Amino acid sequence: MTGGLVTIPARRGKAARVRGGQRIRVVNTHGTQVVDAWAFSAEDPAEWMAMEASRAWFMKLAAAVGDTFVTNRRRPILTLVEDTSRCPHDTLMAPCDRHRYGLLGVEGYHDNCRDNLHAALGELGITIPATPPSLNMFMNIPWTADGALSWGEPVSPPGSYARWRAEMDLVIAFSACPQDITLTAGLDPTDVLVRIR
Amino acid sequence: MTGGLVTIPARRGKAARVRGGQRIRVVNTHGTQVVDAWAFSAEDPAEWMAMEASRAWFMKLAAAVGDTFVTNRRRPILTLVEDTSRCPHDTLMAPCDRHRYGLLGVEGYHDNCRDNLHAALGELGITIPATPPSLNMFMNIPWTADGALSWGEPVSPPGSYARWRAEMDLVIAFSACPQDITLTAGLDPTDVLVRIR
Repeated sequence: MTGGLVTIPARRGKAARVRGGQRIRVVNTHGTQVVDAWAFSAEDPAEWMAMEASRAWFMKLAAAVGDTFVTNRRRPILTLVEDTSRCPHDTLMAPCDRHRYGLLGVEGYHDNCRDNLHAALGELGITIPATPPSLNMFMNIPWTADGALSWGEPVSPPGSYARWRAEMDLVIAFSACPQDITLTAGLDPTDVLVRIR
Repeated sequence: MTGGLVTIPARRGKAARVRGGQRIRVVNTHGTQVVDAWAFSAEDPAEWMAMEASRAWFMKLAAAVGDTFVTNRRRPILTLVEDTSRCPHDTLMAPCDRHRYGLLGVEGYHDNCRDNLHAALGELGITIPATPPSLNMFMNIPWTADGALSWGEPVSPPGSYARWRAEMDLVIAFSACPQDITLTAGLDPTDVLVRIR
């Protein structure tokens, strides 16, 4: 698909193909839901949106409206064009994975953003050789002047959204974060809506 | 090798095997030299030191003495045990690569930390499927309370060092950053000395 509505079910991931110039609206339907996001060049999925290259591009810890994320080849891939979420989108923290839930005391399997990413790409027949750092939309990670980080409670109102412009043909992948142990994603994972057009 | 002295030539990379419990002293011989660093599990190089998981572990933008970096499987790999450099070690910025120098106006090939990493690992017969974000030792990237980043001039005095403890059997890789276009690495790339014991 290269347009239309995509629902990311609670605790799950979903990927979609997007043409350069299209807009991607990520709606925090119920509020306070964290959405981990990744983007890949449609031509070569080994070229992906890189948080470490993007910070060096826009020279901020988190993007403001008008800022552009770049790939691991320093090419523009995604621009934040509108944002009603009242929350910076975290670029600092790793997506959750089964090791993280193990450390939090979870026994057995727990849904996690890393596995959701790979499953979502798998549905499109895409495999990648590693897990890139994620862009954690609506995730509230405050920092202080002396560099201390903390896990903030999520603040995005229901129905608020972030709108992005694709700067190349790309594959976008989302995970509606299944974090229900800490407050970071609001304890009660919900679905989110993505509109591409 | 699992001990001894390693010289990282100016503009080049070098990797070495380190046993768990050994100390790695990275000496900024001439001062102001930036050293990009990566670490990999000796058992499986797909398990690597992850900046995004490490920030979530020690909850800071940059490690202080006593803080431990973890892998992409959330296992401790490297602890900062002593530091005379007077400089935070940057965790935010991508290692330089040929795309970065292209954007800076360089025509033709320029030495870069990404290629240095892969070449250094190649000397040990190790290949990895992607370039992990680097730990940029002695790289001065100031942040402000509102999240703005800047390229600071390097401040590490000649002979100052950072000392690290290996928390597992690992492969460590360094690149004496060849950045000579901006002030970030001091314009005049030099060699650095690494002592493992």
